[in-house]
Amino acid sequence: MFQSFDDETDPTVGAPRLARLRAEMRRRNLDAAVVPRADEHQNEYVPPSAERLRWLTGFTGSWGTALVTADAAAILVDGRYTEQARAQVDTAAFEILVSPEATIEHWLERVLRPGAVLGIDPWMHTTDQLKKLEAAATAAQATVRLLDDNVVDAVWDGRPAPPLGRISVQPLALSGEAPQAKLGRVQEALKKARADAMVLTQPDGIAWTFDIRGQDVAHTPLPLAFAVIPAEGRPRLFVDGRKFTNDSRAHVAELADIDEPAAFRPYLDTLGAAKSRVLVDPASAAAALARRIETAGGSIIAAADPTILMKARKNAAELAGARAAHRRDGAAMARFLAWFDRTAPTGNLDEIAVARALEGFRRDTGALEDISFPSIAGSGPNGALPHYRVSTATNRKLDEDSLFVIDSGGQYRDGTTDITRTIAVGRPSAEMRARFTDVLKGMIAISRIRFPKGTSGVHIDAFARKSLWDGGFDYDHGTGHGVGSFLSVHEGPCRIGKLMTPPLEPGMILSNEPGYYKVGHFGIRIENLVAVTDAETLPGGERPMMAFETLTLAAIDRRAIDVERLDAGERAWLDAYHARVREEIGPLVDDDTRRWLGQATAPL
Amino acid sequence: MFQSFDDETDPTVGAPRLARLRAEMRRRNLDAAVVPRADEHQNEYVPPSAERLRWLTGFTGSWGTALVTADAAAILVDGRYTEQARAQVDTAAFEILVSPEATIEHWLERVLRPGAVLGIDPWMHTTDQLKKLEAAATAAQATVRLLDDNVVDAVWDGRPAPPLGRISVQPLALSGEAPQAKLGRVQEALKKARADAMVLTQPDGIAWTFDIRGQDVAHTPLPLAFAVIPAEGRPRLFVDGRKFTNDSRAHVAELADIDEPAAFRPYLDTLGAAKSRVLVDPASAAAALARRIETAGGSIIAAADPTILMKARKNAAELAGARAAHRRDGAAMARFLAWFDRTAPTGNLDEIAVARALEGFRRDTGALEDISFPSIAGSGPNGALPHYRVSTATNRKLDEDSLFVIDSGGQYRDGTTDITRTIAVGRPSAEMRARFTDVLKGMIAISRIRFPKGTSGVHIDAFARKSLWDGGFDYDHGTGHGVGSFLSVHEGPCRIGKLMTPPLEPGMILSNEPGYYKVGHFGIRIENLVAVTDAETLPGGERPMMAFETLTLAAIDRRAIDVERLDAGERAWLDAYHARVREEIGPLVDDDTRRWLGQATAPL
Repeated sequence: MFQSFDDETDPTVGAPRLARLRAEMRRRNLDAAVVPRADEHQNEYVPPSAERLRWLTGFTGSWGTALVTADAAAILVDGRYTEQARAQVDTAAFEILVSPEATIEHWLERVLRPGAVLGIDPWMHTTDQLKKLEAAATAAQATVRLLDDNVVDAVWDGRPAPPLGRISVQPLALSGEAPQAKLGRVQEALKKARADAMVLTQPDGIAWTFDIRGQDVAHTPLPLAFAVIPAEGRPRLFVDGRKFTNDSRAHVAELADIDEPAAFRPYLDTLGAAKSRVLVDPASAAAALARRIETAGGSIIAAADPTILMKARKNAAELAGARAAHRRDGAAMARFLAWFDRTAPTGNLDEIAVARALEGFRRDTGALEDISFPSIAGSGPNGALPHYRVSTATNRKLDEDSLFVIDSGGQYRDGTTDITRTIAVGRPSAEMRARFTDVLKGMIAISRIRFPKGTSGVHIDAFARKSLWDGGFDYDHGTGHGVGSFLSVHEGPCRIGKLMTPPLEPGMILSNEPGYYKVGHFGIRIENLVAVTDAETLPGGERPMMAFETLTLAAIDRRAIDVERLDAGERAWLDAYHARVREEIGPLVDDDTRRWLGQATAPL
Repeated sequence: MFQSFDDETDPTVGAPRLARLRAEMRRRNLDAAVVPRADEHQNEYVPPSAERLRWLTGFTGSWGTALVTADAAAILVDGRYTEQARAQVDTAAFEILVSPEATIEHWLERVLRPGAVLGIDPWMHTTDQLKKLEAAATAAQATVRLLDDNVVDAVWDGRPAPPLGRISVQPLALSGEAPQAKLGRVQEALKKARADAMVLTQPDGIAWTFDIRGQDVAHTPLPLAFAVIPAEGRPRLFVDGRKFTNDSRAHVAELADIDEPAAFRPYLDTLGAAKSRVLVDPASAAAALARRIETAGGSIIAAADPTILMKARKNAAELAGARAAHRRDGAAMARFLAWFDRTAPTGNLDEIAVARALEGFRRDTGALEDISFPSIAGSGPNGALPHYRVSTATNRKLDEDSLFVIDSGGQYRDGTTDITRTIAVGRPSAEMRARFTDVLKGMIAISRIRFPKGTSGVHIDAFARKSLWDGGFDYDHGTGHGVGSFLSVHEGPCRIGKLMTPPLEPGMILSNEPGYYKVGHFGIRIENLVAVTDAETLPGGERPMMAFETLTLAAIDRRAIDVERLDAGERAWLDAYHARVREEIGPLVDDDTRRWLGQATAPL
């Protein structure tokens, strides 16, 4: 199994570890320290060796920061993780702060005394983040001291070694563009920005650029590495050589000089000493990097890493791969949903059994490289926690006459999937069906929308919420995130949400996942992945428009719909979608599943 | 008449004036200069003495920047002004650049040679703008020289003197909050930001804070002045004393020390010498200001001017004033629209006659202080220019079987209005009615929307465009701008548009004005002002929602609607709106107008 259901954390670790950290801070004359969930790649997915926040606090969420002074400590999480933090963290030791109402900076301004020294590991913060910390320190008349090593690592006994995941080659048939061509485009971008070189710090950017995949973190095929790409000449990849197979070493050696990780920081000095103008992304690169280059005499061009946008626009081969992965995943989902409907009435199912079964159906495809994240399988009130992760401690039987939320995905060599379905167990109440239908209307609105060039996710997010807003409801997460091509299930730069991100462009793959959560009662989320396409031109239409092609192929539970709440256009969309699911998935499944599918996808 | 229809500009002035500017640049060893449409207040509304861009280029639009080197010159305008710039500017002398595709920075990077010196008057650019110019210069290996005086002023013979508009008191009954209380709130905000003082640079912020109004620029009752507000103690207002009446001097003297404008810049040195921490808004204050304070030894807290958001949230008295102003303006609009319908069939009407008549009806109210901007009165193809300003040279008779666009507003002591109606002349074509209905659907969508706390204009803008997007259409301007209370008809910080602005809050007044423009053929815009309100809670609704109260009261031309394209909810909204117009405006107009109004507001 890729998914583990063990309780991985224990709140009682917090107090003694906090005491050890404070002792180390005193030894170094630091009055305050910041411990983000981050590694030197500023990546959402970190290896066990970088789980410093979890070591210190017990918190296992994907976003959070601990703040520590001699007499105060806090952990900042976002709204998704409030409940989880309360359960995992010793609240006598750490105050729980919730973003965006609370910020690191406000807390620091509140607790730092004039003259205080805040210790910061500049490899754990981006340039943008460090600027904010420095401003907060200045406002409190305190100072920031940049540390040469990490203060948590100094007291972390038994810290795991950095990972040595095997690096494989992503074949050209799936990547659709030779790495030589990608490097050529990157080098063009560097010349346009008048940069002599760039530092590529994001592991998924390295994976995309060099057509390689890794195994350094769970569920996402990232190779942890740094690269320097000069505007002319050969790139240099800094990576532990033990990760290579013969094949992947030969593949990379054709494209770049390979060097050990220990050579990376000295190489920044070399770049600086040569007075290089180096493009570094202030939003994604560790602050230490730019400082080191500047200290050595180089200059920094602060600009977005050009691979981010290039990687986000999937080419024809990647889109074909995504469609194939979604058909394969759709067949596994059909088998799963049919099994669920057969098995749920026995009364013996629990959340872990459901998650295990789904992983089994995906494994049966023979093509599953990993799950794309630990499945969220929430029964009844657990479904109301948007980022619920089932464990043996929280595992719950299926509630009767309720809704079951299952959010899951697969990593296939040709594509990454991410799908949520909310399934009726017994007879959901009228309220459940009303809210389910509101969420569905929002999901359909995004599926059907046409929008012009220049439109960003922020401009269309509210169409997913409109039917909820009309009744006085909403949900506290974004509507969609970018998805990689056999890469990160959360991929930038585009989103459908409340924050401004770059305009949507053809080829981008995003999720479309509105939801509704009634705390303590039930939750609903319906998620398809969609690809941005050029829309067909309508007669008389003046402007080129874009639209979404739905990639995900799985039945949406008709038993949870209040059909009266759908208008004619929405019904037609759902019937057409279900017909497509039936036609594309039917031929890929066994007879029993096909029969189930026929009934599950019948017109409303 | 407040509106003038003279041709105010002549493209032939450009070449000789450009030559004189270049001679002055050579004399000062400047390789490049930037001439924005700006004064030292960074205000959209500038007096004749600050119309440097117009003097140099002939361009009269409200936003633009000239860029000049020894052998190249350009003017950057935005999409609204492309046509106008081509007509007003000598295109042999100035290349026309259109934002956002073109930027000042890209042009500079393109033309500046290594070692070039770019002369900048730091009183004409905000801190944020100056940073971008400096980055562009650095990218081109050029340098920025900050000038002590303005290079255009040095060669501008006959430059008008700064204005001396009379300052009046805005009575408490209309402002709704005593200036002492407002100053108290500002001082609280300064203490919270740990600032010793702030510099208030925006004239409308000064008008709001001190409950005064001025007459220094056309159509907007601004007093050009600067103020320094300390966190404790009396503010200091820098303003030409000749602008005061006895009343307004006594009113201000109770609140602040009054000083002459010449004392302002030395006072910044005094603040700096006292090591003051001064709040200065980097997005709205001239860059010179922060530099001067820092040079003298002070420090800058870069933060948004707190009066901007306070002013935007209208209180109960201001909202009551707005409603009264809109009823008064609505009566004038009803008389105007009835007159238009009677007079248009004679065939003798032209755009100027229409604009004159409308101003006359507003003057007849006896309460008109000014029009709130020069009316946009566009017949046929002129209606397709969103910011068309009619002059004797462009004046056009009403086109038969077409649409006439009239966008206008009044400044009343109790409120500022801004309304656009598109009127059927004869029988508009099916295409015109289809697009009119699309625009109306968008306007109704904004009018009816409910949205939660935290929603910004950027999140709802697309609801105004959806019906156009569905057919392959769009419009190239925002959907709504903030509106002041007997102040600027364009007031920040909130908008309904594509850019991120702060969240909407109860009391804010905005326009709701989608449009459609078929260049060379016809244009459509329908605009009401709306106020953000707390929405009534629905049974079962979980979250406090906000909504819009429509302030504008004038019939929307039913003859231009393709009723089949409206759904039941849209028809119900329009019928209810028309019933409200009939009930509220009917009693305020003469019998003939009331009869016309009855028919114009009949149910669909």
